Amino acid sequence: MIEPDFEHRLSAFAGEMETFFVPLLADAPGEGEMARPARLMAAMRHAVLGGGKRLRPFLVVETARLFGREIGDKSGDVRFAAAALECVHCYSLVHDDLPAMDNDALRRGQPTVHVAFDEATAILAGDALLTLAFDLLSRPEAEAEPAVRLALVSGLARAAGLGGMVGGQMLDLAAEGRFDPVRRALGEDEIRRLQAMKTGALLRYAVEAGARLGRAEDAELAALIRFGEITGLAFQLADDLLDETQDASVMGKATAKDAGKGKGTLVSLHGIEMARQTLGDLVAEAEALLEPFGAHADVLKAAARFVALRDR
Amino acid sequence: MIEPDFEHRLSAFAGEMETFFVPLLADAPGEGEMARPARLMAAMRHAVLGGGKRLRPFLVVETARLFGREIGDKSGDVRFAAAALECVHCYSLVHDDLPAMDNDALRRGQPTVHVAFDEATAILAGDALLTLAFDLLSRPEAEAEPAVRLALVSGLARAAGLGGMVGGQMLDLAAEGRFDPVRRALGEDEIRRLQAMKTGALLRYAVEAGARLGRAEDAELAALIRFGEITGLAFQLADDLLDETQDASVMGKATAKDAGKGKGTLVSLHGIEMARQTLGDLVAEAEALLEPFGAHADVLKAAARFVALRDR
Repeated sequence: MIEPDFEHRLSAFAGEMETFFVPLLADAPGEGEMARPARLMAAMRHAVLGGGKRLRPFLVVETARLFGREIGDKSGDVRFAAAALECVHCYSLVHDDLPAMDNDALRRGQPTVHVAFDEATAILAGDALLTLAFDLLSRPEAEAEPAVRLALVSGLARAAGLGGMVGGQMLDLAAEGRFDPVRRALGEDEIRRLQAMKTGALLRYAVEAGARLGRAEDAELAALIRFGEITGLAFQLADDLLDETQDASVMGKATAKDAGKGKGTLVSLHGIEMARQTLGDLVAEAEALLEPFGAHADVLKAAARFVALRDR
Repeated sequence: MIEPDFEHRLSAFAGEMETFFVPLLADAPGEGEMARPARLMAAMRHAVLGGGKRLRPFLVVETARLFGREIGDKSGDVRFAAAALECVHCYSLVHDDLPAMDNDALRRGQPTVHVAFDEATAILAGDALLTLAFDLLSRPEAEAEPAVRLALVSGLARAAGLGGMVGGQMLDLAAEGRFDPVRRALGEDEIRRLQAMKTGALLRYAVEAGARLGRAEDAELAALIRFGEITGLAFQLADDLLDETQDASVMGKATAKDAGKGKGTLVSLHGIEMARQTLGDLVAEAEALLEPFGAHADVLKAAARFVALRDR
């Protein structure tokens, strides 16, 4: 399904994010020339700029917009929260690509950070991006109530940490048999849990952050968090499908990695047709959750369709 | 100078921190067994438990105590802030020890994390500890005003990030000639800046965090932050001195590293005698800054003497 209006909107947003990031990474906290180590900042820019769908920050912004909060608000809270989340996503890619981890040389059609620079710089650039995320969420100049911003800090730390993304990456390495000579295939529950942690947690958080910035009521928050979870499930299932059906030149990164490593996915367990059907069900559930928000939620509905049905 | 009362107090505090960390790392955020990847948590425990002077969290707690805030407060804010800072310190050691960084096999007399486990686990354990720090600072159950806790988040992100610790580590690698075949020795100003970022920022933050938790007045906050800066300067100068004068068996880690790598330090620039004299001056300045706090500040004064005059 091609939705040119949505793809145009997402792509325009990606351009805005790029514009927002440029000065952020040229004028980082710290004093004087020496406090902005040039090579480290260049590596951070390499990691953050020049590509990426910007799906996570898009979800933050579009969810906040449901409640009339605009990215242009002078407080900048929405924009800072969106950028913080993208910093965490980008740091995770830099570290995951390292030789000791997935050892990937290609990302978004470009050399990965440790290839373009070196391993030490890539480790530190990832560390600095993760730290910058929490700096952005706690900037003294933002004006949202401190309690809301503290909830954003807490949510991001939970989504990104041991019980979320980092823990999921660890489980993923374990699933490749990295730490255990006797490897066993993961069961469906384990695959779902792994994916909910590794990729689901940040997507769920994107929607939650937007809802909190929009001061959603409890029932709205719960519905939107569930929407975020479903979007995460659909994202990962679509990713697994693309990993089996697309080649690297389309994706701008290595594909068929899961099959090559013998990792189980829901696609390998249930087949391509069942995966496509499940994606359709997830989209329907996502759309139903957004019904109470009326036409304001059309963009988020299109986002769910895009996540589930994209071809790259 | 031996101060048995102080050393006893610091060592008792280290025991309390250990006790505090054990359940924290056994019951991390996330649900169910699979959300607590056992190997990752074991690596985090290896990084955090079993040693360390716990100087940074000690400074948080003792500074807060100047204002009558006790670690036993039911809010737990002081304890969480102290633990958060120690998590950041420990993560930085794990990443700095990696083969691509300083390639150290020994830390506190034990194998470093990537030696005891593996590189991927060490990278992720560091990432998880850094993230856990911000989780701890933003726990919903803490009761200090959100604005105070948000200031602690902001301060930690600044102290640990690009303009602080991570940036300092990058400058340190550059000073070893890692990225530049034509190496030049650092000048005194550059050494001071590097050290203020790499190790000074977290020590300064320790005192700042304690003062903010104690709701210090502006003038008190400024004096204490300066005290934290001086403590940081003394810490690094003492470290450089020990690196030249002690051997690895006493320190529990590799020594003479700076000399081996040809990095300039203030000791190599000015000599051992001048370094000892400067340490004495720093202690005197630190004590003078604490005069307004009277006898309540005796422990912090002893901490400054300990930092400057320690033999390991």
